[in-house]
Amino acid sequence: MAESPARRLRLGMVGGGTGSLIGDSHRIATRLDERYELVAGALDIDPERGKRFAATLGIAPDRAYDDYRQMIEREQARPDGCDLVTVATPNNTHFEIAHALVQGGFNVLCEKPLTTRVEDAFALAKAVRDRDVVFAVMYGYTGYPLVREARAMVAAGELGAVRVVQTEFLHGFMAGPSGQSGAQGGVWRLDPSIQGRSFALADVGTHALFLASFIIGQQVAEVAADLHRFVPGRELDDNAHVLMRFDGGAKGMLWASGVAAGVTHGHRIRVFGERGGLEWHQSRPNELIYLPQNGRPQVIERDAPGLSAASRFRSRISAGHPGGYFEAWANVYSDVADAIAARIAGKPADPLALQFPTVGDGARGVKFVDAALASAQQGGGWVDARV
Amino acid sequence: MAESPARRLRLGMVGGGTGSLIGDSHRIATRLDERYELVAGALDIDPERGKRFAATLGIAPDRAYDDYRQMIEREQARPDGCDLVTVATPNNTHFEIAHALVQGGFNVLCEKPLTTRVEDAFALAKAVRDRDVVFAVMYGYTGYPLVREARAMVAAGELGAVRVVQTEFLHGFMAGPSGQSGAQGGVWRLDPSIQGRSFALADVGTHALFLASFIIGQQVAEVAADLHRFVPGRELDDNAHVLMRFDGGAKGMLWASGVAAGVTHGHRIRVFGERGGLEWHQSRPNELIYLPQNGRPQVIERDAPGLSAASRFRSRISAGHPGGYFEAWANVYSDVADAIAARIAGKPADPLALQFPTVGDGARGVKFVDAALASAQQGGGWVDARV
Amino acid sequence: MAESPARRLRLGMVGGGTGSLIGDSHRIATRLDERYELVAGALDIDPERGKRFAATLGIAPDRAYDDYRQMIEREQARPDGCDLVTVATPNNTHFEIAHALVQGGFNVLCEKPLTTRVEDAFALAKAVRDRDVVFAVMYGYTGYPLVREARAMVAAGELGAVRVVQTEFLHGFMAGPSGQSGAQGGVWRLDPSIQGRSFALADVGTHALFLASFIIGQQVAEVAADLHRFVPGRELDDNAHVLMRFDGGAKGMLWASGVAAGVTHGHRIRVFGERGGLEWHQSRPNELIYLPQNGRPQVIERDAPGLSAASRFRSRISAGHPGGYFEAWANVYSDVADAIAARIAGKPADPLALQFPTVGDGARGVKFVDAALASAQQGGGWVDARV
Amino acid sequence: MAESPARRLRLGMVGGGTGSLIGDSHRIATRLDERYELVAGALDIDPERGKRFAATLGIAPDRAYDDYRQMIEREQARPDGCDLVTVATPNNTHFEIAHALVQGGFNVLCEKPLTTRVEDAFALAKAVRDRDVVFAVMYGYTGYPLVREARAMVAAGELGAVRVVQTEFLHGFMAGPSGQSGAQGGVWRLDPSIQGRSFALADVGTHALFLASFIIGQQVAEVAADLHRFVPGRELDDNAHVLMRFDGGAKGMLWASGVAAGVTHGHRIRVFGERGGLEWHQSRPNELIYLPQNGRPQVIERDAPGLSAASRFRSRISAGHPGGYFEAWANVYSDVADAIAARIAGKPADPLALQFPTVGDGARGVKFVDAALASAQQGGGWVDARV
Repeated sequence: MAESPARRLRLGMVGGGTGSLIGDSHRIATRLDERYELVAGALDIDPERGKRFAATLGIAPDRAYDDYRQMIEREQARPDGCDLVTVATPNNTHFEIAHALVQGGFNVLCEKPLTTRVEDAFALAKAVRDRDVVFAVMYGYTGYPLVREARAMVAAGELGAVRVVQTEFLHGFMAGPSGQSGAQGGVWRLDPSIQGRSFALADVGTHALFLASFIIGQQVAEVAADLHRFVPGRELDDNAHVLMRFDGGAKGMLWASGVAAGVTHGHRIRVFGERGGLEWHQSRPNELIYLPQNGRPQVIERDAPGLSAASRFRSRISAGHPGGYFEAWANVYSDVADAIAARIAGKPADPLALQFPTVGDGARGVKFVDAALASAQQGGGWVDARV
Repeated sequence: MAESPARRLRLGMVGGGTGSLIGDSHRIATRLDERYELVAGALDIDPERGKRFAATLGIAPDRAYDDYRQMIEREQARPDGCDLVTVATPNNTHFEIAHALVQGGFNVLCEKPLTTRVEDAFALAKAVRDRDVVFAVMYGYTGYPLVREARAMVAAGELGAVRVVQTEFLHGFMAGPSGQSGAQGGVWRLDPSIQGRSFALADVGTHALFLASFIIGQQVAEVAADLHRFVPGRELDDNAHVLMRFDGGAKGMLWASGVAAGVTHGHRIRVFGERGGLEWHQSRPNELIYLPQNGRPQVIERDAPGLSAASRFRSRISAGHPGGYFEAWANVYSDVADAIAARIAGKPADPLALQFPTVGDGARGVKFVDAALASAQQGGGWVDARV
Repeated sequence: MAESPARRLRLGMVGGGTGSLIGDSHRIATRLDERYELVAGALDIDPERGKRFAATLGIAPDRAYDDYRQMIEREQARPDGCDLVTVATPNNTHFEIAHALVQGGFNVLCEKPLTTRVEDAFALAKAVRDRDVVFAVMYGYTGYPLVREARAMVAAGELGAVRVVQTEFLHGFMAGPSGQSGAQGGVWRLDPSIQGRSFALADVGTHALFLASFIIGQQVAEVAADLHRFVPGRELDDNAHVLMRFDGGAKGMLWASGVAAGVTHGHRIRVFGERGGLEWHQSRPNELIYLPQNGRPQVIERDAPGLSAASRFRSRISAGHPGGYFEAWANVYSDVADAIAARIAGKPADPLALQFPTVGDGARGVKFVDAALASAQQGGGWVDARV
Repeated sequence: MAESPARRLRLGMVGGGTGSLIGDSHRIATRLDERYELVAGALDIDPERGKRFAATLGIAPDRAYDDYRQMIEREQARPDGCDLVTVATPNNTHFEIAHALVQGGFNVLCEKPLTTRVEDAFALAKAVRDRDVVFAVMYGYTGYPLVREARAMVAAGELGAVRVVQTEFLHGFMAGPSGQSGAQGGVWRLDPSIQGRSFALADVGTHALFLASFIIGQQVAEVAADLHRFVPGRELDDNAHVLMRFDGGAKGMLWASGVAAGVTHGHRIRVFGERGGLEWHQSRPNELIYLPQNGRPQVIERDAPGLSAASRFRSRISAGHPGGYFEAWANVYSDVADAIAARIAGKPADPLALQFPTVGDGARGVKFVDAALASAQQGGGWVDARV
């Protein structure tokens, strides 16, 4: 593992306050490699609660802000202002906050989905280009080393041209009436004013799409979708079936669901090319199944000898020691740290660090949701999903 | 296990000659329960070769026929004519042979797909009704005890209303140019004049469809499909992605492929209802994964205590002794034997024996292929698949 | 698969009467390849019940015998007497019956354990040599194709010299007081007068031992054992832990148990040599895990390309179609059929058919039980287990 | 998760310098919960190299020490001296360093094996009692939440009395001649002057033992062992087979190996009681297999509803997000932090935090190695292993 840089980057956070699982995830992920120190935050819609929580996190009182606007104004004024700001607020606020941060010249790491409207996503992408900041979207599953190995294998041609990709993300937390749902099934998830126009696609479907695009190196070109609301009374879909055609010739299916009763976290992908296939499950993230045509199924372990530089880049411990979710997220954060540190140093970033999801990846996800909704609403058939 | 009946049924066979794997499968499956004796055959397109092979199988020379027409004529004339005739010939000949047998009053067990044209399938179904014979289609995978357990669990309401079904059958034997394909990839499989209008759907897709319908107790109502020819020069598709809507409200996805490079036999299904899910893989047929909502994933073993009568009906050995493909097929054959024996005895058959796939199931499969082709040819969108 | 021989061998059976699961297993196994016809039997300790059952199996009344003595006498007198007699009676009667059959010149296939006393086992082995009959012991698990593949891989040196073998056979049917035990837990199993001096070792331990010896091609030389009676009131052990040293330098551990609560049939083996390892579970018999040193874990499928002649010898269907328990047993029966047919023809048998367990293998199992008991009774330490 | 305490504990480290994987593991583990800050170190046998490395870790120059003696002297003199010192040096130095630290009044977390000699282990345990410091041994695998769940299930009687435990830890990094061994196979591991009198038992065997004792709540009472040196020229064993009897009536087998060719990290345990069994593999640490007698095998997920307080105590993220090795280690570190913080506060520690391995656990491991060596050297048979 590369030696730690001289200075830790200064991290700010919007959202992720008391009781936010996702806030904890972000914070824990930033600790593993000690590339960041959390110095500022507008953590809560309730400023006082946010400040109390900030104190428990070691944030100085003068950098615990009322809201993101105050945070932008004051951090801009400091010589030691934030190097990166994480946005971990509800979906419908991502655009406004992230856009203001970008306009203010901050590097940003934003939760997914990037925005709830396509035009916002495009405007955000344009702002990032104009202000030339580092901007990442937290598709954290692509931080798993073996997901990166899969991508590297495809890029190296080990499968030949990719033909078919089957990608899915399912859980059952919305299988019952919303009031009865499990711990992860917050009511806001089904509120269109917060979640956007689709639950299944925005909540988990964009993860499934990005995992596919990331690995196969192709972007979705057209989609045909069937969306369903299985639980009565819902305003948003809770299950989505999508056919996909990619710009590089691959075809695919995507299943995103909140009604897969009995499933905790079914995020899985299969990719088949001319000469073999790959299979990966988030629940067993240290095993990549490789199916060579005319060969035997093989299990590729994280950090095993012979793996690509892409997957070994952020190895912290040798093979056989299971890595998990926090390491995946930490990899995204450390990629972003490398990109920011390179800018500070006026040098190009290590290409191996440029594996984090960009604002363009986020915008493509929003467009995908939009196109799938359009297909479903028009009674099926193909809809363009290119950005 | 029920005691064997006094008399073994007399079995005839059309096709399944020298070197036919499928012929061996049928013959071995008929042996396990000793419900049949193979007494007659028109086993080969080459009559002499067929007769030589018949001799090795213990078929008397006077019942080794030149072709199915001769077989029908002479077996009809015998007091001890065939009780059942198996049709294991190329797809494009199923209709002609099976129809003639039915018209001749024979009970028939026919390989899938039932026919290559929808109108033929409907005509055959009508003939079966008119002549009132027993007619089965060899969707052999539904003979696995745990597939039958899954069906019984759904029928008993253990999952609540079924919402989503994900069904697939894939292999990679057609991933390379046809000349290079593996042992199971006969050239005829890609010849439209033999296989029909689709390879992926007719070869394996109808298995995937029937497995779904069998388990969830619903029939497909509409389909939207994307079919592809990945290997250049092919006249038929080698991969199919299908969205499905069932008549009982379930939605589904079906993937059928001959280009899943590195896969030997990927036949698998997942079913999710209001209160739980089920998962079954043909490669591990003695394990049914049950995912109760708000409970822990469980592994249901073949013949375990507490299983339904439906799955225990044809148990030959206690749990822990793996059953396989031949037992699944044998179960279908013994179901058919019970149905025929009941007719001979003038009694109703044991309802537990009526789990075998019927001519109607076969016709629905042919219609499904037709509807999926129509959807794909018209550029996507929903097409009616009801019969 | 080799063409069936002209004549089916005539099979007789002692034991395996009404309600005997093991009797069903033997009979079903003999049907798959049609190498035998069941023509004679002394099926039951109760002659009348045995004869009624024989009738349902199609055995002619004049060949349904009162007992094995009558069977030997009359079958010897017939020109078409039995070619093979299966002994499927309680353990304590194996010796008397099998010895009488061998003395009478019959080929025999005997259930395991061969005998309950070492001196009987040796006497039987001597009788087999003297009378020069074919004699097999039904360690049926070694009939699985991938067990034979494992053996062939070791023999071909693919692992280098074998160092360690971990073998086990466990179930939980005896975990509760005997009266409460499951369906497979017959009371006789714990009766020393029937089972012999050990339950865990005789019931399942000899299977575990033979699986190891079969695969590694070495015989156990010394053992050190700890035997336990966990359920109060038992006269026989219900759990056995054994350390082993083999004559070729391998070391091993063996666990045999009837008190592995919650386990149905845990028969599994792992073998490690200088250059790699192998792992096989009876519950997933179509998967052999191969662990090459400095390579990736691989899954070897039954009948996959490149497998040895030894495992492909009795393939009935291509890879991807799961085989099970009956095929494993059928392989042993067909091996024995080949050996007998070769004798009848006055030719040497195909070496590939000589994979069935012999009387010597059976005797080694009995000696192993004896040595383990001696070690346990003397408070541990090594005891010679060579025959 | 409990709120972080006001003050981070001050951590010192002996050993774990440049290139030390284990040093990285310790450091990363301390970061997840922000309970510690690394403030002091004597990281390397080469003082200058140690100081350079300390600087990259943010340790102030005046707290980067020449050696542990200097560190003890100066840290004792500071008002803000270390709250905990981690010992991550070669095995043969554990005693001297840890003993000096304890005598100096420091709380200590020591790598396993605690010492290389039994008398040292006992002396260390006595010193800990005398000085009343917090002392932990880094059996990090017992930090996995599902290992703790297994322990809680046993303690709650869910299995009934434990009868059998099968525990193992294997890898193949020593399968070849030492010069050819893999990345994890440092030469020192086979040097008796560093490793102690056993390689297999000290390197991995004590992990396997402690995992068993931790889960079943019983201590090993007697052992009978067979130790082997498979690779020529080795002074230490590279494979160990051990029979065990526990003080609560359980019996067990332990396999520890460095010659399991092809295995990366095979740490696994199975426990069977009167009413069920449990199975856990370190390679899939988020799945605990539960085998209820007369029930179906179940998969218990980390952080699933209904789990014990013991396993949920240190949950950082909801079920479905795989946890790994660093979280396990972090749990041990945070347990120790709670114990130390409670002492500082003059309060009793949360009983849930007292799950970390103690000096007594470490001493029992050393005694176990000693007893197993004695058994092997005397040619087998039982040796007392009680402390």
